Amino acid sequence: MPRPATVSSEQLTDALMRLVVDGGLEAVSVRTVAKEAGVSVGAVQYHFKTKDDLLYAAYERVIDQVALRAQAIQATSALDFVSKLLQELLPLDERRAAELKVAMAFSARSIYSERLAALYSTGYGALIDAIAGALEQADPALDARPEAIQAVALTDGLAWHLQCAPTRLTADQALAALDAHLARLAP
Amino acid sequence: MPRPATVSSEQLTDALMRLVVDGGLEAVSVRTVAKEAGVSVGAVQYHFKTKDDLLYAAYERVIDQVALRAQAIQATSALDFVSKLLQELLPLDERRAAELKVAMAFSARSIYSERLAALYSTGYGALIDAIAGALEQADPALDARPEAIQAVALTDGLAWHLQCAPTRLTADQALAALDAHLARLAP
Repeated sequence: MPRPATVSSEQLTDALMRLVVDGGLEAVSVRTVAKEAGVSVGAVQYHFKTKDDLLYAAYERVIDQVALRAQAIQATSALDFVSKLLQELLPLDERRAAELKVAMAFSARSIYSERLAALYSTGYGALIDAIAGALEQADPALDARPEAIQAVALTDGLAWHLQCAPTRLTADQALAALDAHLARLAP
Repeated sequence: MPRPATVSSEQLTDALMRLVVDGGLEAVSVRTVAKEAGVSVGAVQYHFKTKDDLLYAAYERVIDQVALRAQAIQATSALDFVSKLLQELLPLDERRAAELKVAMAFSARSIYSERLAALYSTGYGALIDAIAGALEQADPALDARPEAIQAVALTDGLAWHLQCAPTRLTADQALAALDAHLARLAP
């Protein structure tokens, strides 16, 4: 295979996302990303020195993708926006399932890395802010931040269970659980 | 260090749990468990052939520990039992934090292994059954299974966020979120 002399960090992140989707965190290394992208180990190391650098880039990509889709949401109300944004976190299609695989590998690893943990916290904080803001708009009488903490926890838990126990929890049951939770918040 | 000729699978699982707690999934291999337990690689391979065998044993240990603590719960009501059982899943002390680290490493890996996924689903199913049973006892009018799905998802989501975003979510906030959710279920 011809090896291009230069490769962008975006192309490497694409290769990395494919590796996590197919084989998980363990499939990821500077070497396997180089092979997947068809470039030299040195070309990868120019952008990413370590496995943690690679995971960091992958999770940044996930955050960016979710943020882009959030901006594109067409909502009929503030609560509808909350529902649609939270559904973006559930593994209901291939793209979201891939993002969740990256998120699970990243979070399991972030426990052991301050730098990764800082990115996780930033992403979590931004999501809570977005949901709390929309809930406040939906109903100023709501205790928006605690409700956002609950709604995001419920959604991530459902995502985890859908991904890891698909024989026990269906997509319909997960969506019904999210709907039932949010219905209580309707003004 | 003297290497005992025989070692029990329990002793090896102890060593493995320590490795996951200190360094995550990546710190686990037949070789590192042998070193941590002070035995030969062959002694580990007698019980566990692969890394997945090791992770399987670790997660079985977590399920067993939580089940034992569930049996010991002194509850004032069925809903109090639900609250206390779900709190066993939150990383509120060192033991529970260690169990969650194993659970997160195991579930992230289970996506790529049918055998690991089957154990995850069995554990998840047993937990849903236990919570749904107690909720039915608390109030026969409750739609117990969907409520159990919601309560377990909320709890696992809070556990995930407490573990990975401790600067954004405090233990008090997580307990308040769980309390608020369960308070709605009081008969």
